[in-house]
Amino acid sequence: MESVTVIDGRLCSSLDVRDRGLAYGHGVFETMRLAQGSLPLWRYHRARLTRGLQVLRIPCDESRLESSIQALISQCPAEGVLKLTVTAGVSGRGYAVSQPLNPTIIAQWAPNPPTSVVSVRLQVCGHRLPINPALAGIKHLNRLDQVIAAAETAAGNQALLLDTGGRVIEALSHNIFVCHGAQWVTPDMSKCGVEGVMRELLLAEIFPKAGIKAVISSFTLDELLAAEEVFICNSIQGVQSVAEVIGKKQYSEHSQTHRVSEILREKYPCFNA
Amino acid sequence: MESVTVIDGRLCSSLDVRDRGLAYGHGVFETMRLAQGSLPLWRYHRARLTRGLQVLRIPCDESRLESSIQALISQCPAEGVLKLTVTAGVSGRGYAVSQPLNPTIIAQWAPNPPTSVVSVRLQVCGHRLPINPALAGIKHLNRLDQVIAAAETAAGNQALLLDTGGRVIEALSHNIFVCHGAQWVTPDMSKCGVEGVMRELLLAEIFPKAGIKAVISSFTLDELLAAEEVFICNSIQGVQSVAEVIGKKQYSEHSQTHRVSEILREKYPCFNA
Repeated sequence: MESVTVIDGRLCSSLDVRDRGLAYGHGVFETMRLAQGSLPLWRYHRARLTRGLQVLRIPCDESRLESSIQALISQCPAEGVLKLTVTAGVSGRGYAVSQPLNPTIIAQWAPNPPTSVVSVRLQVCGHRLPINPALAGIKHLNRLDQVIAAAETAAGNQALLLDTGGRVIEALSHNIFVCHGAQWVTPDMSKCGVEGVMRELLLAEIFPKAGIKAVISSFTLDELLAAEEVFICNSIQGVQSVAEVIGKKQYSEHSQTHRVSEILREKYPCFNA
Repeated sequence: MESVTVIDGRLCSSLDVRDRGLAYGHGVFETMRLAQGSLPLWRYHRARLTRGLQVLRIPCDESRLESSIQALISQCPAEGVLKLTVTAGVSGRGYAVSQPLNPTIIAQWAPNPPTSVVSVRLQVCGHRLPINPALAGIKHLNRLDQVIAAAETAAGNQALLLDTGGRVIEALSHNIFVCHGAQWVTPDMSKCGVEGVMRELLLAEIFPKAGIKAVISSFTLDELLAAEEVFICNSIQGVQSVAEVIGKKQYSEHSQTHRVSEILREKYPCFNA
């Protein structure tokens, strides 16, 4: 099976062309690990989705989200990737919303990606993420910065994205953590970037459980290069060691990363790739 | 007739849900005045669309654009608004493009908007446009900044947008010109904003024809408030006098604007609203 799509609860693979998701990117999405027919990180994904819907002023009952997911799960394999997109739906012309919105809920299943490379090579992108506090943190459908960054990244490398102020923000579809001494640091996402679900889970559950210190703080590329260990993470692939920032630094030490990864896989066995 | 849609040359109103236009906003659009069954500003729209497609690395034959427009024009009334959207089409998962793209071309007709208010009231938006040189100027599908700005603007007002550096950039879906002495100034669009087709037409044809001086240069809100006359413009509504920046300034003088508007309407009679 290649893909399964459910729109507003029904098997369907086409969208009304007047949808505000297409016209303006007026919507949000989540890409989630489906394991044994359920979504182990659903409460984290739901929290971010809800926050995004509020920012974009899209009203959507949680029950509609859950029934769309259930409709998809009843039709697709028990393992894979489940993408949930919620748009502002069809409305009249123009940016302003003149009538009550009726959101479109799209649930899509796809097979798990091929097992990922254990060691990651980061390529510093020339394209810089814009500062946009109103949209920072949420996972909205305006993703041209990522499309441009991906286009300048060589196959097999991971894009490393800085903002227009020179701060390290994230990898293409991963958050990033760096280790200095016995402390992990991950960038502040209040001005740009996506607050990843795996980042959230690590900060809320994994680090505290292991008694590992971790803080949120901005840092530059030089500070990344001075770190002893670096990993990237997302909710599909878990935690991945960074072996290299291409042309700038190789990291030989990965023991702290392995410890984080082990605790994660103990608690969430689906990340035993 | 409410609307007519042609996708890839055929009457159709639904889109493959895997389209990159929905997933990432990977595409561009033009909203054009259709008058007596033709597009008087087509060469300007085509130039901007082509520039946008190059920036977003979407290959698209000009002949496909023109045949889509002709297919729509043969099915719709001779007057109205024609929206042309070109997306990167359906591709595999992920931001990167791994196979040759086959763009989707969507042509939509809608009736002309109600005759616009002659005098415009500008409301300064709290939301600031992000600095993003790679995407500046083109009319892409990532329009959440405009959605947010529209949501904070009272009905009947026009949103006035500044960038994060405090420079005046544009109105919600119009460019802006201010008059100091006998010279018009319009903001530089190299870091953010959309290079409007009407702005381009005024700079290339109308001002030179009338011997009126006009330059492209950044300016602040204070400089806008110090101007003698202000107008906004776009390719649907032509040139509109600004009567007021709400709470800050009223403009009583409109004679220079009327002169620009008259020359425009002489050369392009479709703007005789």
